[in-house]
Amino acid sequence: MLEDGLREDELFRHLSSIKEKDRSYRKVLSSMCSIPHPVAVRAHNIFIESNLGDPGLFMGTASLEAELIERLGSLMSLPEACGYATSGGTESNIQALRIARENAGKKSPNVIIPESAHFSFEKACDILSIEMRQAPSTEKYIVDTERMEDLIDGNTIGMVGVAGTTEYGTVDPIEHLSDIALDRDLFLHVDAAFGGLVLPFIKGSPPFDFRLDGVSSISVDPHKMGMSTIPCGCIMVRNPDFFRSTEVDTPYLTVKKECTLCGTRPGGPVAGALAVLDHLGRKGMIEVVERCMENTRFLIRGMEELGHPVAVQPSVNVASFSCDETPDGWIVSRTRHGHMRTVCMPHITRETLEEFLKDVGEM
Amino acid sequence: MLEDGLREDELFRHLSSIKEKDRSYRKVLSSMCSIPHPVAVRAHNIFIESNLGDPGLFMGTASLEAELIERLGSLMSLPEACGYATSGGTESNIQALRIARENAGKKSPNVIIPESAHFSFEKACDILSIEMRQAPSTEKYIVDTERMEDLIDGNTIGMVGVAGTTEYGTVDPIEHLSDIALDRDLFLHVDAAFGGLVLPFIKGSPPFDFRLDGVSSISVDPHKMGMSTIPCGCIMVRNPDFFRSTEVDTPYLTVKKECTLCGTRPGGPVAGALAVLDHLGRKGMIEVVERCMENTRFLIRGMEELGHPVAVQPSVNVASFSCDETPDGWIVSRTRHGHMRTVCMPHITRETLEEFLKDVGEM
Repeated sequence: MLEDGLREDELFRHLSSIKEKDRSYRKVLSSMCSIPHPVAVRAHNIFIESNLGDPGLFMGTASLEAELIERLGSLMSLPEACGYATSGGTESNIQALRIARENAGKKSPNVIIPESAHFSFEKACDILSIEMRQAPSTEKYIVDTERMEDLIDGNTIGMVGVAGTTEYGTVDPIEHLSDIALDRDLFLHVDAAFGGLVLPFIKGSPPFDFRLDGVSSISVDPHKMGMSTIPCGCIMVRNPDFFRSTEVDTPYLTVKKECTLCGTRPGGPVAGALAVLDHLGRKGMIEVVERCMENTRFLIRGMEELGHPVAVQPSVNVASFSCDETPDGWIVSRTRHGHMRTVCMPHITRETLEEFLKDVGEM
Repeated sequence: MLEDGLREDELFRHLSSIKEKDRSYRKVLSSMCSIPHPVAVRAHNIFIESNLGDPGLFMGTASLEAELIERLGSLMSLPEACGYATSGGTESNIQALRIARENAGKKSPNVIIPESAHFSFEKACDILSIEMRQAPSTEKYIVDTERMEDLIDGNTIGMVGVAGTTEYGTVDPIEHLSDIALDRDLFLHVDAAFGGLVLPFIKGSPPFDFRLDGVSSISVDPHKMGMSTIPCGCIMVRNPDFFRSTEVDTPYLTVKKECTLCGTRPGGPVAGALAVLDHLGRKGMIEVVERCMENTRFLIRGMEELGHPVAVQPSVNVASFSCDETPDGWIVSRTRHGHMRTVCMPHITRETLEEFLKDVGEM
């Protein structure tokens, strides 16, 4: 540690030079995060010292969290859904499987996860000492529900379905999974971290939310398509009793119990998430999502014209292609099957895509 | 959800009115968080969209995280300590116990925790399916090491010591715990979430860090006495191999593996934490800590004069008193033994304490 400390001007000259080593998002086609909306940044700053881990001190911020959950619950067809703002999809998925585990009370628990699910489920199962059984995908890159059902046994505590897969932008047959869950009396978690703020704004999207009676919990991340500041995920459950199993007593706080994973929780991103939804309204969100989906379709057409077919038609703004090379200067990623993976987030413009396609054509 | 969305001026009028329902920190004597330092807020805003979950995109921010860990590692007497920025003490404690569990590979693991440890250990043990064995405190509100040793058996995967207890501001006899850990070949985690940025700045503090050979991991939270924005905790381990056990493969990211608990991780608070340490330097931190400690001693003297003795002389700026009532308008909290608990954070001034003591005297 420095003995004397840096003057503010020196410090910020240094930090600005470090900032230049970060990529700007402009040519980043791989991320599910984006530049936060300006109203999110402004709202975040108003609540920058708010700690939702001590809601009795921050009753205003706590009311914003309740409002955010109510907005997202309504969007998921259950305005009375019970939930809280997490640090992101990983925490939400850990908490969902934790609830499922406590709820089932099996000695050697296992959970059935689609092969295409996010890698955070591997982490969650490792942490929670749950055996992870992976159900393979069909050639459409959605989970094969028959194979999923085959994996269920007496120690199965739950199943997971994904609404907007990270790799292919597909939606698992959640309706079918919901039927199986009801039939087998199993917990069903829907990972809609990405799709949760896309699918409700597209007409004719497949059903994936609490409208399906078998869906027990849903995760939705405002810091992805909700354009909030990070970190802001949300976990919502159908039955408020589910959170009883994750509660601990909290001496020396302004509340008696808490059910979250983290202790201190930032209020800024929650205010940011709510600000975006309230500023844009449903119409504004539809516009954002439509533009992202139009860009996705434009990219798919362009890539196909260049001889790089899309692996599958996506339901959200994620598209993966048969294309082994990556043009210089661009950031895309690779799926586990080796496809070139792209996400048309709000920072990706039509002009950027034209430039990208030109560069792909010249590879 | 609103159909049309609110205009910016309406939205921010609403948010400002909500903000007024949050407590200002002025009369809050219960919190281990405080108002962030202005350089932390400014640095946070420069890196507000940075996602450390994708460090290949944010190489600048990732270098700040490495610098922060190096600063804190040096402060903990091991500049080469391996670590990362967590969402706070709870995540750090979960990760430490997770590493201990994986490292030991026992079938029915148990861990020995001081009775006085933070409630997050209960959460961690529940999540990780580890039996939590609580060792009682002595009358000095530190763990009774003999009773701790008695609880160790063949399934014990580790022990925890606290440097700066949440309730009494005491430091467990970490030197003795370190000897036991070496002797019994056990993982020893030191929870210095609070004390880690206090004790190194006070002459004659008891040893608690990596100087003690038996200490395996330490958590330190810059969002407490480091005056960063939230969320910013840090977990550091002596042996970099410890993180192998928490790694998962990360397809579709700019890095191949990650060892953290969360996925998306905000870079802003990390920049904020580093900015405070670099701006204040060691001398500035000593000044902040000395002022907080002087205020703590002033409060203890004042309370004793009013007939409310301190439960135990603390080693950090936390003091708990025999005082059943709470004066109106003030936020203090209660320990599990019923003491009135106070924390003299940087936002607590001498004038505030004089006002508090006057109100206690008039109860």
